[in-house]
Order: sequence, then structure tokens, then C-alpha cells
Amino acid sequence: MNANAQTDRLARGSELLARRTRAIRNVTERLCDTLSPEDCAAQSMPDASPAKWHLAHTTWFFETFVLSREDPDYTAFHPRFEYLFNSYYNAVGEPFARAERGLLTRPDWEEVLDYRRHVDVALTGLLEDPGRLTDAALDVVRLGLHHEQQHQELLLTDVKHLLSRNPLAPVYRPTKEPAEAAIQSMAWHAHHGGLVEIGHGGEGFAFDNESPRHRVHLEPFELSSRLVRNGEFAAFIEDGGYERPELWLSEGFARKQEEGWEAPLYWSKREGRWHAFTLGGFLPVRSEEPVCHVSLFEADAFARWAGCRLPTEAEWEHAAADVPVEGNFLEGGRFHPEVAPVRAVHRGPLQLFGDVWEWTSSAYAAYPGFRPAAGALGEYNGKFMSSQMVLKGGSCVSPRSHLRASYRNFFPPDARWQFSGIRLARDVDRGGVLPV
Amino acid sequence: MNANAQTDRLARGSELLARRTRAIRNVTERLCDTLSPEDCAAQSMPDASPAKWHLAHTTWFFETFVLSREDPDYTAFHPRFEYLFNSYYNAVGEPFARAERGLLTRPDWEEVLDYRRHVDVALTGLLEDPGRLTDAALDVVRLGLHHEQQHQELLLTDVKHLLSRNPLAPVYRPTKEPAEAAIQSMAWHAHHGGLVEIGHGGEGFAFDNESPRHRVHLEPFELSSRLVRNGEFAAFIEDGGYERPELWLSEGFARKQEEGWEAPLYWSKREGRWHAFTLGGFLPVRSEEPVCHVSLFEADAFARWAGCRLPTEAEWEHAAADVPVEGNFLEGGRFHPEVAPVRAVHRGPLQLFGDVWEWTSSAYAAYPGFRPAAGALGEYNGKFMSSQMVLKGGSCVSPRSHLRASYRNFFPPDARWQFSGIRLARDVDRGGVLPV
Amino acid sequence: MNANAQTDRLARGSELLARRTRAIRNVTERLCDTLSPEDCAAQSMPDASPAKWHLAHTTWFFETFVLSREDPDYTAFHPRFEYLFNSYYNAVGEPFARAERGLLTRPDWEEVLDYRRHVDVALTGLLEDPGRLTDAALDVVRLGLHHEQQHQELLLTDVKHLLSRNPLAPVYRPTKEPAEAAIQSMAWHAHHGGLVEIGHGGEGFAFDNESPRHRVHLEPFELSSRLVRNGEFAAFIEDGGYERPELWLSEGFARKQEEGWEAPLYWSKREGRWHAFTLGGFLPVRSEEPVCHVSLFEADAFARWAGCRLPTEAEWEHAAADVPVEGNFLEGGRFHPEVAPVRAVHRGPLQLFGDVWEWTSSAYAAYPGFRPAAGALGEYNGKFMSSQMVLKGGSCVSPRSHLRASYRNFFPPDARWQFSGIRLARDVDRGGVLPV
Amino acid sequence: MNANAQTDRLARGSELLARRTRAIRNVTERLCDTLSPEDCAAQSMPDASPAKWHLAHTTWFFETFVLSREDPDYTAFHPRFEYLFNSYYNAVGEPFARAERGLLTRPDWEEVLDYRRHVDVALTGLLEDPGRLTDAALDVVRLGLHHEQQHQELLLTDVKHLLSRNPLAPVYRPTKEPAEAAIQSMAWHAHHGGLVEIGHGGEGFAFDNESPRHRVHLEPFELSSRLVRNGEFAAFIEDGGYERPELWLSEGFARKQEEGWEAPLYWSKREGRWHAFTLGGFLPVRSEEPVCHVSLFEADAFARWAGCRLPTEAEWEHAAADVPVEGNFLEGGRFHPEVAPVRAVHRGPLQLFGDVWEWTSSAYAAYPGFRPAAGALGEYNGKFMSSQMVLKGGSCVSPRSHLRASYRNFFPPDARWQFSGIRLARDVDRGGVLPV
Repeated sequence: MNANAQTDRLARGSELLARRTRAIRNVTERLCDTLSPEDCAAQSMPDASPAKWHLAHTTWFFETFVLSREDPDYTAFHPRFEYLFNSYYNAVGEPFARAERGLLTRPDWEEVLDYRRHVDVALTGLLEDPGRLTDAALDVVRLGLHHEQQHQELLLTDVKHLLSRNPLAPVYRPTKEPAEAAIQSMAWHAHHGGLVEIGHGGEGFAFDNESPRHRVHLEPFELSSRLVRNGEFAAFIEDGGYERPELWLSEGFARKQEEGWEAPLYWSKREGRWHAFTLGGFLPVRSEEPVCHVSLFEADAFARWAGCRLPTEAEWEHAAADVPVEGNFLEGGRFHPEVAPVRAVHRGPLQLFGDVWEWTSSAYAAYPGFRPAAGALGEYNGKFMSSQMVLKGGSCVSPRSHLRASYRNFFPPDARWQFSGIRLARDVDRGGVLPV
Repeated sequence: MNANAQTDRLARGSELLARRTRAIRNVTERLCDTLSPEDCAAQSMPDASPAKWHLAHTTWFFETFVLSREDPDYTAFHPRFEYLFNSYYNAVGEPFARAERGLLTRPDWEEVLDYRRHVDVALTGLLEDPGRLTDAALDVVRLGLHHEQQHQELLLTDVKHLLSRNPLAPVYRPTKEPAEAAIQSMAWHAHHGGLVEIGHGGEGFAFDNESPRHRVHLEPFELSSRLVRNGEFAAFIEDGGYERPELWLSEGFARKQEEGWEAPLYWSKREGRWHAFTLGGFLPVRSEEPVCHVSLFEADAFARWAGCRLPTEAEWEHAAADVPVEGNFLEGGRFHPEVAPVRAVHRGPLQLFGDVWEWTSSAYAAYPGFRPAAGALGEYNGKFMSSQMVLKGGSCVSPRSHLRASYRNFFPPDARWQFSGIRLARDVDRGGVLPV
Repeated sequence: MNANAQTDRLARGSELLARRTRAIRNVTERLCDTLSPEDCAAQSMPDASPAKWHLAHTTWFFETFVLSREDPDYTAFHPRFEYLFNSYYNAVGEPFARAERGLLTRPDWEEVLDYRRHVDVALTGLLEDPGRLTDAALDVVRLGLHHEQQHQELLLTDVKHLLSRNPLAPVYRPTKEPAEAAIQSMAWHAHHGGLVEIGHGGEGFAFDNESPRHRVHLEPFELSSRLVRNGEFAAFIEDGGYERPELWLSEGFARKQEEGWEAPLYWSKREGRWHAFTLGGFLPVRSEEPVCHVSLFEADAFARWAGCRLPTEAEWEHAAADVPVEGNFLEGGRFHPEVAPVRAVHRGPLQLFGDVWEWTSSAYAAYPGFRPAAGALGEYNGKFMSSQMVLKGGSCVSPRSHLRASYRNFFPPDARWQFSGIRLARDVDRGGVLPV
Repeated sequence: MNANAQTDRLARGSELLARRTRAIRNVTERLCDTLSPEDCAAQSMPDASPAKWHLAHTTWFFETFVLSREDPDYTAFHPRFEYLFNSYYNAVGEPFARAERGLLTRPDWEEVLDYRRHVDVALTGLLEDPGRLTDAALDVVRLGLHHEQQHQELLLTDVKHLLSRNPLAPVYRPTKEPAEAAIQSMAWHAHHGGLVEIGHGGEGFAFDNESPRHRVHLEPFELSSRLVRNGEFAAFIEDGGYERPELWLSEGFARKQEEGWEAPLYWSKREGRWHAFTLGGFLPVRSEEPVCHVSLFEADAFARWAGCRLPTEAEWEHAAADVPVEGNFLEGGRFHPEVAPVRAVHRGPLQLFGDVWEWTSSAYAAYPGFRPAAGALGEYNGKFMSSQMVLKGGSCVSPRSHLRASYRNFFPPDARWQFSGIRLARDVDRGGVLPV
């Protein structure tokens, strides 16, 4: 490829990226359409962030890692925003205290939108001016867009948590009545195991923590054909599942006692029937939908109760390797406010992508041979690697582009405010039977 | 007085009250003129409340204790507001968790204003319809207005605290440069003591905790002619005042250590000079202004350092009994954003009213013979009587109508976010000398 | 008095003091006769101290404030004990962390007894050598003996708390069956009030915080003729007393909720009947004995439930001024392990002294004109004066010499491990009726 | 083998076991020889247990799982000990609160020794009566002995922690001056990796969590020839290692800040030189000894600083598979109070066994195909599997019988009171260089 051809390719890539930037950045703002400035400013717990903060932080990413590095003429929108909207990149300077993000009533909503526009204009200006950005810089822009999409999901999980704390049970977006679904019994898909490869290896974007692709040895195992459903989880509750220490990891049982868990987050009984707070308001729990908002501890206890276990990350990823990416997820700003009912049977495990994140029994750790990126961006994933568990597959509020077998999500084992659910696995030589 | 004359009197009183209601309710809203919806919704600590909550709670008071009791045709604005905006009246039902008021992003700002209008229309309608309200009900309205004015002050203290947590140091309202003040040395005013009377006894409104008027015996004492100033407090700091346990109450020293206090709340050093966050922004500390935002513990330690002590409530009230009520306070929605410099010398102690609340060495307790009002209103003051200390005299953000000698403010000894300062006292037979 | 006569007087006083020193120091050790070295070393909560620590700390007092100051030949028993056994005298140096006293397994029990003997020999040697100690030094010895007696009571309260935490419910000392007591109904004793004097004023020892004697004005009041009994308190519980917020100080209700109080400390139900852990083991609660181990919050709620109130310190002291000091207390190392039943009726309120400490509604504060002693001893009482409430009269484990009307005990309003109970008072013009 | 032969074999095994029981049980008691009853009763933190509790709990194990199941004539020593000395076996009943073990002053030291003798007599009686115990029961006895040895190590770690909190710095056992050691530079041992086997697979005792033996795939790696030394760790401190967030896991940096870590546990500077509290007292830190009492977080940060990483469990175990078990450990009740200096070079990595536990980067989890034992014994290891990291190789206070490549120790990543140190690893293609 001669220099001109390469320039052309770069220019086309850059222009496409400008369009994609506008589209993705627009989706983030559209997610706030039904929210008030107060809704966007409040923080319901230290683990959650205000919607406004998500909007500003994703903008800060482009300002810090692209504009201020690549454009000598760029003027920062506000000299203090570098400090205010840094999440945890210590290399950029000490970040503002995470638990106090809800106190940042200034900048207000309009000013944050202005901040976004200021950065969008500068960024798309750079992108549309062929040759202004190197390949490496374009890669940072791409990373920034995926980062923004991660925050789209977090924005929805955090808004759900916030609204759930309000006794008025506000509706974020009305739910459509789901279509009737064929009831599907749980089946098991066998896998031979052996020496297999996991991790990102092909074309396309992936976060650094998905690399390098590497070999692992798996014993034969079976994976259930679908997610665990609300009705099944209710049977676990009815059977005293939350009161039987022998089913729980000891740390999990202690946490459950401290926090008073008696059901998944957002569930409560009204007139003898389980209801749940959803993005569509406070609604009866539907038996046939996948159970959601359970911690690793609850997922693990359920699996033990069912005579099964959770899959390891490698088992899950290996099983998902050739499964087409379909599911219920966030696309173009549209999503089903809550998880969808079980869809029709087809070959291979169902519901691997979208719907709910699936807890694995694997602690999050770097893959063998992993190298963090140099500089502040190296903090992006390299720092979180302790006391967190891997989740796979994405949820109903995950952006489409995050749905791939190698994607590694991770949260502490007691986290419940993510859209997280349960996939069962079992050893081949042992007949775990789900008693429901 | 015959029946007609009484009716006329009632009618006139009722009409005046309608006008006063409009005026006071308007002031509360005017205090938010420079704030955004986000500013009004956030809660910076459990002890503080969002401005929006203050607006709704004061409205709830009239709805609960006047409209729903006196007007059979009244329809509540929203069925859940009775729960949401109850502060602590257990007799009305369990209140919403105090520490989570900042999560109530709904109702939003406009809806709270609608709530206020809905109640104002109904309330002034009742007041302007002679004979609709009994004398007792009119008294509850009057109580409600004083209650609203208390919340005007709290609204300002809470907003100040919230804005102070923002690294952008937002300006609530620009400060005017104060006029030059004659420097005044501290003088002492002697009082004979003996059997004196304190407590509310005359005409005019007072809260129930100011009653009954009763006798106390006082030994001779002296009260300083003015408040302790920033410059004097800075000398205490320079002299190691925060590091010398012998100057502190033991509970106070422990608290100071835990919290890391090294100066009054809002003070910090910039380029070697004390600055303070104020409602007018982050400004240099002015030596001649009264020190503000100190806890009882700091006030007490300062007094000990100065060879003096704090006055008791009875000493303060006795000394203030015949002093004209003048000072720097909140009137008609206007106030000096921060405490004013010392004013010209005149006879009697200065600055007794307004400027800063003055800590006393008296624990808050019911007066001998005190009876709480019956019913939910009885919770208004009767429940707080432990581990709080009395403050007297009002502050620069206290409404004018709260400035009277018998007024009893009370806060825990470690509270610092109120506009609280220091008045010194000493026994007559002992020469405490302020070494500054 | 000529010099010889004065020397003789001093010598006699000094010799008497030597005898008293031996007797009191011996009592402290006798209290540990039924305890093991482990019992004496453990600390059951930060507020309590190990018995061994009490033995060492009271010894430290004499070593620090008498021997090392008055005897140039005195050699400290161990160079680090000055640090280890200082309780809170900051002027002597930073004390060892209070909550970690149970970790001081060294020095062991025998070494602490050696420490006591070392100090006792040196101290009585000084006392028996006429003229070695000045009058002022003899006063410090006397203070040290009263201090030691305070710790005798604390040793017993702390041991009771420790043993209560052991599921084996160990018996400290078997209880004798109390004699049958005449049932006595509650009567009221009226007092005129007026300008009265309280505080220590006469001969005999008193702590500095009992001074100066001073005048206070009292409104007429009535004091109940006896303490509130277990049976009456059980009726309060039966009547939902612990669940009715309107009966409680708001801080008290919150504390009760946090701590899960449902009855006095040490009470629990077994087979439908109230039992209590006592120094004599786990025994049925006797209805006619004074209720014990209640906080100020519970005492205050009970009084409100009974239509009465707690007395103020001044009311109590005035009423007790001429009452002979009789009661159930600690004398010569002997005491009734638990509170005694009501004794026969006689004139004046009963059970003012001994039995249980009686909570008052008065916050602990310095008397008007109070001066702390100079130097480290000035920390003895001067530092505690915030957020504590006064108790009067002594308990069944108080040494006889602490039973006097002016004695001021003080504890935080949530303290329950002291032998604290309830005396009722009421205003004269109001008929509070105990509904039991 | 005919029946007689089998009986003979059983009898011999049983008799040997009786001898081994006496020997091991005796060692546990000998470890307390230099301790007082108070030393043995105190608990310095919730994670640690009193020595007396270790003695009683290990006895409880034999009483609960052997005697009361196998011997119908056995009478429990005390009916409540089953509750008091249960550690965490929920299937046996709710255990006594872990954090309150220090409050169990009763049973006292002598009674616990009596308890031990009571159980020892019954147990060895059973063992010496051939045929009384089945093979399965003999296996439980063997498990109980290994369990007792685990507690021997814990007893020493817990005693060290307790004594360290005493400002008198008591000496548990005087340290002998170590022999001079040849200084050895760090070398690297390369391993090819590939599909290897780990886990217990051969003869001899192993805990259930070491099974099943299974295959894992390893990339090529290198392991350092020796442990990281104090001198090297001091260089990390000097280089600001504790202040550089980029070196730390984010959870680790946060923990460090909360706890104020600035050096390994027990280290402090005296006159500019590092000292450490040891079982031999407070001594200067010796540069050439392995660093000890670091958390996983500190180990991981050190490795990153050195341009290396920690080994995974599988790498460590694979490298150790054929290394002879030699080292500094607990044998027959004798041990070097502190870790030993580096010994002479020989082939293979040094110091794999004994000296200090070596943190790995592997989260503790069940091996593929793991089955917990049935019943209460199944709780033994099956419950701990979250948020803990694996340590390998044993320490200077580990019993000899715990030194094997497959042994899996596990502690939370912030634990520092175990004898835990640092082994470095690195990828083959990358030259991590220890800059010291």
C-alpha cells in the first residue's frame, strides 16, 4: 500500500469514526431524556455515580487522552474538570472522592451539556481533518467510544438504583408487555474440554484485559441451555435457601446476614406476591424471566442448592465461542427496560449474550502474559485485579458492541445492582438435578 | 368584648396572618433564586437537608397540622408527601430516613413549587374567610410561620455546607466589602446576679421550650462586651490550642482527633494565610470579624485558653434582657452573607443578637414545670432534650423574629455547620485575661 | 496550736492514714479472691477495664502523685508502668489506648501484686515516718484512697459485665436468699423548694467537683418514697414501653433501636419468665427489688410512662440533705451481690443511699465558681464535663465512704453496666400517677 | 490379605496413631510453656484466637467427630463445650461469636488442660483397643491431628500478634544468633510449562482441597531462586513503594491508606534503623533474611516494582514438584523463632518449603471436580472459597507434615499476621530486573 492509499484509508477510517462518535455520544444523552436535572445529579451509593457524572467523565476521557495531547490549539473547557471528572487514573492526579460525586451540583446539567458539545466539536473537527490524528490516537478514540458505551450501561444501572430508593417508585420508561414465550425446560449441553484457547485473538476491538489469547485445559463439563428463571429462584427462597448456611460461601452468608438479604435486590412482597422495582416501575415478578440482580454469593448458593455449580470463565467462553451473538441488549439507545422472557429453543445454549450478566466462579485476574498499556491508560484495567469475580455475556442494557465471548466484566461478589443472573454448569460425571 | 367585636378582631388577625403567610413563604423561595434545581436537591451530610426538602417540609407542616385538620374539603396534593416530608414526628407515622433526603429527586423542583402553591392557595383562602379558623388553629398557623423561618436559616446553613464541598467553590451571593470598623478592645460588663427570672413571659410569640418563665439564682458574673474575633481565634491556633489536651473537654479532644480539626469549619490556609469558604465564595479571613463555625468544644477550649469560661444560658439571657434587639440578621430575605465587623461601641454588651449564635455552657433541658403541647406538635421540642447545648442570640442568617433573649437554640457540642461563635464570661472574683 | 502539737496531730493523722491505706488496699485485692488470673486480665468492652488494670492503676496513682514526688529515694517498680497504667491524665503523658487494656497480659497477675506490695511498703513507710509528708501530700494520699474505692466499685461492675458475656454464666459469689420484705406502696414526699444550698460545704472528704457549695432556686416538687422496682419496670415493658417513641428522648429511642434493647441490661426471658445475670449467677428477677442496669434513656422513658419525671440533681440533693446515710453498700469488702429488697418504711424517702445509683435529669457540669486543682490532678474531674448525666446516692457496690448527698457520679445517658436505677419526681401541681 | 492380616494391620496402624496422637497433642501444650494463663486467654483481634481456645478447639474436634460418634460410653467433659469451642461448623450448631473468644475466661487454663486429658485418655484408649475404630474413623483421627497441627501454627502467629501489642515487647522465646550465611544473588530457574498436573495424587495424607489431581496448561515461566529479603524490601520502601499507586492493586492501595501501612507488620524505625517485633523480642531487622508479614497487596506491589510478578499457584506447585522438602519449620515443638537467613546455593529454587509462606497470584477456589466431604467435616474447607488468595510452601512455624507441594494455604489479600513473604516469577520473554 503506497502512502497515498494509506492516507486515504486513514481518512476514511477517521471520517467513519467521526460519524460513530456523534452517534454514540448522542445515545448517551438520549438515555437521560426522561430524567430531570435532579435525577441526573444524585448519587444513591458510593458504588454508583450520577448520570451527569457519567456524561462528564466520558467527555473528560476524550479531553484528557485525545484533545489535550493531540491538538496543541485545544483549550480545556474548564481548568478544574480534569480533577473533578477523573475516575481513578492516579497517574493523571488524585481523583475527586468517589463517594461525593453527588455533591457536585456545579457544573449543572446545562454546563455539562456545553462541556460535551465543546469536546465533541473539537474531537470531530480533528477526526474530519485527515491526517491530524495518528493511528495510535485513533485507537484511543475508539477506546474512548467503548469506554463511553460501558458508561451507558452503568448510567442505566445507577439510575435504576437511584429511582428504586424513592418511595414514589418513579418510572424511567414504561415497559411493553412481553410477548408470550414458549416454556422451555432446562437442557444440558456437553463439552469435551481439553486444551482450548480463550481470550481475544481475532480482528475487531477488545479491551486489553481480554488479551493475550492463551491456552487452558478444561475437563469435560456441561452447561445449561438457558438462564435460571425468577420462578426457579423463588422456589429456592421458598425452600429456605437464604437461611441454610451449608449452601453458601462463608463470606457470602456473613454478608447476607449483615445486609439482611432475603431475595434479589429490588424484590419485595406485596400481598403475598413477589414484585420488583424495574425501570418500568414497580411490577409483579414474571416467573419465566431470567432472575436478575443477584450477587455472586446468591448465584453460587442457588447453584449448590440445585446440585450444580457455576461455570468457570474458561468454560463459559469456550462454550460461547461459536454461538451467534443474539440477545436482548442496548442498541441505538433502545432496549427492553427489563430482561426478556425466554425465547424459542435453538441449538446451543440460549441467552448467552444480552439478558443478564452471568456470574462465573472465576476470580478476575490478568491472563498469562498480560501487559497493561503504558501510561495512564494502563490503569484502565490493570488495577482492579483482586477480590472481583468475572461475569460474561452482557445484559439487556449492555451496548451491542460489548457482546462477544471474550468480554470480561468483573464485580465484587456482593454486587447486586448490575443486571446479573445465573447460568448453571456441572461436571459430566455427576448428575446435578435442578429440583424445580 | 361582644361576639361581633371578637369576630372582627379574629377576622383582622386572620387577614393579617394571610398577608404575613404570603410574605414569609415568599422569602423562603427567594433564598433559592441563585440556586439550580441540582443545588436544591443535594444533601451534603445526614445533618443537613436539601433546600427542596426544606421547601416541602415547611409546606407539609401547614398541610398536616392545618389544612387536613381544619378544612374538610381539602385534598392532599400528593398522597405520599405526608410520609416523604415528615421530619421526625413519629406520632404522624414513621418518617422517611433522614440521611436519604438527597435521593428524593422526585418530586422535582417544579413539582415542589406546585405543592407550595397548592397549599398556599388553600391556606390563605382559609385565612381570608373570617371565622373558618379558630383561635387555636390560627396559633398553629403562627407556629408554622415561625417553623418556616427556622428552616430559612437551616436552608442557608445547609446550602453553605453543600457548596463548600464543591472544589469549584461556587458563590451563593457576592459579598459587599464591609465598611471600616472602629477597632474595639474587649471590655467586661459586671452583673450582680441573685434571684432572677428567665424564660418567655410576656406578649408575643415564643416556642414552647422557652416556657415557663421561672426563677434561677445567679452568682455575680461578667460578660465580655463583644464576640471573639477571627484574629483572636487565629492566635489560639498559633499558640497550639488545637494540640493541648488540657484546654479541652475530653470528649471534645477525642472528637477533634477523629475529625482532624485544626481550625474552624471552612477555614483553610492558602499561601500562608487563613481563608474561609463563605456564601460569597472563598475569601481571606478578616481578623476583626467574629469567629464563626466553631463547635462548643472549640468555643470552650478557646475560653479556657483565654482564662475565661463560656456563659451559662441563664447568665446570657439575664444580661440580654434589656438590651435592644439590633444586629446583623436575615430580614425580608436580605442578609449579609457573612458575619459583620464589630460595630461602634455603645453601652451594654455588643453583638448579643444576630452575627453568630453564641455557645453557652448549659445543656439543653426542659425548664422546670415545662409541659410539651399535646399531640404530634408536642414532639416539636420535647424530644430533643439530651446531649445538646444551648446557643443564644441568633446569627446573621437568623430571621429577625427569632431574635429575642428567651430564644433557645440547641445543637450537639460537635456541630460546626451552624453560624456559631464565642462569647466569653468570667467569675467576678477572678481576673481571666485574654492574652491577645 | 504550737509546733509540737501540730507535729503530733500530723503524726497521728499520718499513722491513721497508714492503717486506712492497708485496709482499703487490702479490700481491693479481696474483691478478686474468687477470680482467676484470666478473669482479672480480660476486658469485655472499651468502657470496662480488667480487674488487674484497676489494681495496677490505683497503685500507679500513689506511685505517680505521691512516691515519685515526695520520696527522692523511691525507685519506680517498672519504668514503663507510668505509661501503661495512666488512665487519662494527659498532663502525665499520652495514656495507653483504653480499648486495649485487655491485651496487657504482661505484667501478669503476680507481678501486679508485687507492684502493689512494692508501692504499699514505700507508701506506708512514708506515712509511718512522721513529718515525711506535708499536709498537702497527705491530702493526695487521702484522695488516692477515695480514688481506689471508686475503682473497687468499677472493678465489680466490670467483672459483672465480663462474666455476663460467658455462656457458662459463672458465679462471682453466691447470693444469699434475701429476707422477706414488707411490701411498701409508693408515697410522695413534698418539698417547698425556694433558694437552697447544694454542694459540699462541711467537714470531711469530698471530690473537687462537689464544690463550691452554692445556692440554687427550686420550685416546689415531690420525690417518691422509694425506688422503682423490677415488677413495675416489667409492667412498662409489657405495656410496650420499649416500642413507643413518644415516651423516649429522640436520641434515646435511636440508641435503643441500634442496640436492640428490650429490657434492662442482663435481663432475658427463660420459659416465659424474666431472669437476670447477677454476680450470684443467672437468677429469676425478683419483683420487689429495685430495677437496676437501666440507662438514663430507659429511666426517663419509664418516668414519662408513669406520668412523672426524673428529679434534678439539686432536687435530689436537697431532699437527701438531712437523711441518715443507710443502705445496701460495699463495706469492708462485703456487699450483697445484688440489690436488696425494699426495707421497712420510715420517714423520708427510702433507699436514697446505696442499692442503685439514681439517674437525674441534670447534665453533668461544673458548679458555679468551680476551680479544677492545679496540675495533673486537675484533670481528675475537670475534663469530663460534656454529654454525661449526674447520678446520685450510690449503689450496693459503692464503698460506704462515697455515700453522701453531695457525691456526684456521672455517666453517658446510654450507660447500662453501672448499678443504675430509677427514682421518680413530679411537680407539685400535677398528679403524675404510676399506673402499676 | 486375609481378615487376620487386615486386623493386624489396622491394629498396628491404630497403635501408631495412638503414639502419634500423644506426641502431637503434647507439642501443642509445649508451645505454651513460656506463656502465662493470661497470655493464653487474650485475643488481640477478631482474626486471631487465644492460645487456650486453640487448645480447646482442637480437643473439641476429637470429642465431636470421633468420641461422641464412635464411643457410646463416652461422656462429654462439659455439656456447653460443644457450643463454646466450635469454630465455624454450622452443621454442628451456631458457633460462639469469633470476636469474643477472649471473653471466655472460663473455663480457665487448668480446666482446659483437664479437658484435653479427658479427651486424650478416651481417644488413646479407643486407639489402643484394636478394632474399636473403623478405617473411616481412623481417617478422622488422622484429619484431627493435621487439624491440630494447623492450629499449632496459628497459635504461634496469634501469640506473636498478641505480644506485639504490648508496649513491654515480651519475649516468647529467646532467639539464637543465626549462623553467617553466604550472600546469594537472585537467579532465575526456567520452566517449559505445557500441560502439567497439580494437586494431591499420591500416597500420604492431604486435605480434601488439594484434590483432585488435575491437568493445567502453563506458559513458559521463570521462578526466582530465593525469597525476597528484608534488605530488598527496605529498598522498595526507600524508593517510595508505599506511596506510588501505580504499583498497587487499587483495592490494596485503598487498604494501605486506611490502615496506614508504611512497612511490613511489626516493623518500626528506631533511631533511623528498621526493627521488628519477633517471637524473640524487638530486634533489628536483618537484611539477608526473607521479608515476612507482608500482605498479598504488598507482595504484589513489590513484584511490580521489581519488574516481575508473583507466581500462580500452578506455576509454584509445578516448580516445587520434585524439590526435596527441606527448610526451616516447626518440628517436634522446636522451631527457629524467626525466619532463617538464606542458606547455601543448591540446584532448584531455594526456600520453597518452610521459612515464609509464599503469596501466589491465584485466588483460592475449588479444583475442577472437587467434592466436599459429606456432613459437618465437609465444611472444613468447602466454605472459604471467595476473596482469599493461595499461599504455598509453609513457614518457619509450619509443622513439618504440612510441607508438601500440593498444600494450599489461603488468606485474605490484606492478611499480614501470618508468616507470609514473597517469591518472584516472570514470563520467559521478558526481562524483569530486580533493581536492588
